[in-house]
Amino acid sequence: MIDISQAIKIIDRETGSLGTEKVDLAVAVGRVLSEDVIADTNLPPFDRSQMDGYVVIAADTIAAPVTLKVVGESAAGRGWHRKLQTGQAVAIMTGAPVPKGADAVQKIELTRQSADGSVEILEPAETGKFIVRLGSEIEKGTAIFRSGEIVTENMIATLAAFGYAKVMVTNRPRVSILGTGSEIVDMTKKPGRDQIRNSNSVMLDVLSRKFGAVTTILPNAKDEISYLESQIKNAAKKSDILVMTGGVSVGKYDLTKLALTDLGAEIFFDKVRLKPGKPAVFARLGNTLVFGLPGNPVSAAVTFHLFVRLAILKMQNASTTTQQQGFAVLAADARAAKERDTYLPAKLSTDKSGHLIANPLKWFGSSDFIGFARADSLIFVQKGGEIKKGEVAAIVYL
Amino acid sequence: MIDISQAIKIIDRETGSLGTEKVDLAVAVGRVLSEDVIADTNLPPFDRSQMDGYVVIAADTIAAPVTLKVVGESAAGRGWHRKLQTGQAVAIMTGAPVPKGADAVQKIELTRQSADGSVEILEPAETGKFIVRLGSEIEKGTAIFRSGEIVTENMIATLAAFGYAKVMVTNRPRVSILGTGSEIVDMTKKPGRDQIRNSNSVMLDVLSRKFGAVTTILPNAKDEISYLESQIKNAAKKSDILVMTGGVSVGKYDLTKLALTDLGAEIFFDKVRLKPGKPAVFARLGNTLVFGLPGNPVSAAVTFHLFVRLAILKMQNASTTTQQQGFAVLAADARAAKERDTYLPAKLSTDKSGHLIANPLKWFGSSDFIGFARADSLIFVQKGGEIKKGEVAAIVYL
Repeated sequence: MIDISQAIKIIDRETGSLGTEKVDLAVAVGRVLSEDVIADTNLPPFDRSQMDGYVVIAADTIAAPVTLKVVGESAAGRGWHRKLQTGQAVAIMTGAPVPKGADAVQKIELTRQSADGSVEILEPAETGKFIVRLGSEIEKGTAIFRSGEIVTENMIATLAAFGYAKVMVTNRPRVSILGTGSEIVDMTKKPGRDQIRNSNSVMLDVLSRKFGAVTTILPNAKDEISYLESQIKNAAKKSDILVMTGGVSVGKYDLTKLALTDLGAEIFFDKVRLKPGKPAVFARLGNTLVFGLPGNPVSAAVTFHLFVRLAILKMQNASTTTQQQGFAVLAADARAAKERDTYLPAKLSTDKSGHLIANPLKWFGSSDFIGFARADSLIFVQKGGEIKKGEVAAIVYL
Repeated sequence: MIDISQAIKIIDRETGSLGTEKVDLAVAVGRVLSEDVIADTNLPPFDRSQMDGYVVIAADTIAAPVTLKVVGESAAGRGWHRKLQTGQAVAIMTGAPVPKGADAVQKIELTRQSADGSVEILEPAETGKFIVRLGSEIEKGTAIFRSGEIVTENMIATLAAFGYAKVMVTNRPRVSILGTGSEIVDMTKKPGRDQIRNSNSVMLDVLSRKFGAVTTILPNAKDEISYLESQIKNAAKKSDILVMTGGVSVGKYDLTKLALTDLGAEIFFDKVRLKPGKPAVFARLGNTLVFGLPGNPVSAAVTFHLFVRLAILKMQNASTTTQQQGFAVLAADARAAKERDTYLPAKLSTDKSGHLIANPLKWFGSSDFIGFARADSLIFVQKGGEIKKGEVAAIVYL
């Protein structure tokens, strides 16, 4: 039995990284950048007006109201590219370039146009007002995002602005998912006596894809060693990662480790000081990483988030591969197992004093996945420990 | 100019709902349930063992160590379905059904098997220990999820367990996206003098899909009224929602409202007491809702999250259509515009006392979308107000 931190170190050590590919920006969310993103232009690329109005020389307007001669128009996309002289004004639109010589914009509401081609500036224009200077938002050549960052929705506009219509990202790991156990039937079937539906495979499919994998769900395997071995062997050939569930306890039909050993896999660990998820297995078969997760859905979900997700992200060269951590005040007592560090599913909220509150979910043990359905975080309690309602606990975001 | 809350009310009032369809569970994340999800079975569906070991009558083991006769085996998927008699034990595996008559499981580590078909129980077994009772996790007929809930990754296992291999969800709204402005060029092109790349369309595409829409990005429209009108007319025919950006200021080339009016659209509002995002337009053309968002990317993103997202989710009959709210302690002062309620992009973290901390992002105005790329929330400051560093502010999650 090893500690969680040791398990994480081993997975990190054993996980290599994949090649790269270019993908369309529109489908890049969730993928890991494999290039630095550099500003290929100043932003704004020219002195830009923030207002509709008249662009002027501020000094000309000190004694406002003053009348200036309108010598042109600078519209977005069609600038006025001569040099503004004293006594002159140019009509300007939001987003349009500010002509040379000008140093202020007066907004249209504080001007009065005349039919004779002049404009009355009703109040003094302040130097620099309503002008966003060339390069003030970003200078050409600046690194905006780094290789290893996971692309989010909010990064998309910036990537587009610098011409990253395609982005270089790491390839998706190929993850195969194999549910095992003679008691499980496909979720499309009505379970017979003694049977339950396989709820793990589709859950692991969805979670793996969330972190960038391409997935294959294999047909469920019964507790029959030769069938299991051939399933594992075939899956390993086509996968970077094989995630199995079930068959990792100590019962006589728990065949996962046996099958892996028969096939010549190197088993790195088979028990972690963790609740839920103690009997988690991590191995390598040829070039394929193999995870054997416990069969109950909450244990499978927790060990996915702690271990499998790490491998999926590491393969993509993500700079952050572990879950985001934080601190929250507990809304109820949380107690750990005696000899295992414990993660308890929780739902976060805040109170009016700005505390983050972690509400532990109704949870009758590692098989209560209905409570888990509402979880957005896990409360961490060290082995043998208890954290009382009102005290602060470390949490990880799911 | 209307308040944000009024704008939200109007959008809510004007947005109808779409039909329903069945989709595979594996692609249901992010979709809105249009049926209640009911447990079609008890969970567990039988008294289930949590351990590998021997199932016994607890009273038989009070004087442990005691020797019991092993009369069978209950494996996961292949239970032993007679009635256990006093003096008997049945070998049992994790996940297997507990036979009638038995009331305790002793784990294998506290037993010793004999070759003669008996087992020595080394310590007394506690009544009910290691048995998860039929229906204790969920009773058949219980409503687990309600119509209107958005499917999340953590709900998938539960849906699978109750046979929702396909789920009934509301149809995806068809959203068309139209960037306008003579200054914008496609993100695949190198901008000329006075030009910038269109970063809004792909951002709105990604965001709309995140909330369940199917999207079409239309070719950018220049500030030319007849072209714009034909683009709007064609898009409206094929869309539930048309999202335009740019052309909503008061300049002479801001043609969005003019085009909509020409086409006979009903304009519900065209200015909101909001920063960033004041000139947001909301209209209806035929059966199509039309949003005219400001051209700068941060304003477009904020008005998307406040307004467009609401319409996309309302069309899907989502029970929660607004952003999740909370409270956080500010890491720096935050000030509102004088006459407009203000949303400032921020990044959240926590401190060791369990406070949620909102870190306002470097932000030079509504066009600084590079700061926005890191945002995970918006700080709300009421018009004319200021909230100081260390004080609590209302936030919304992005």
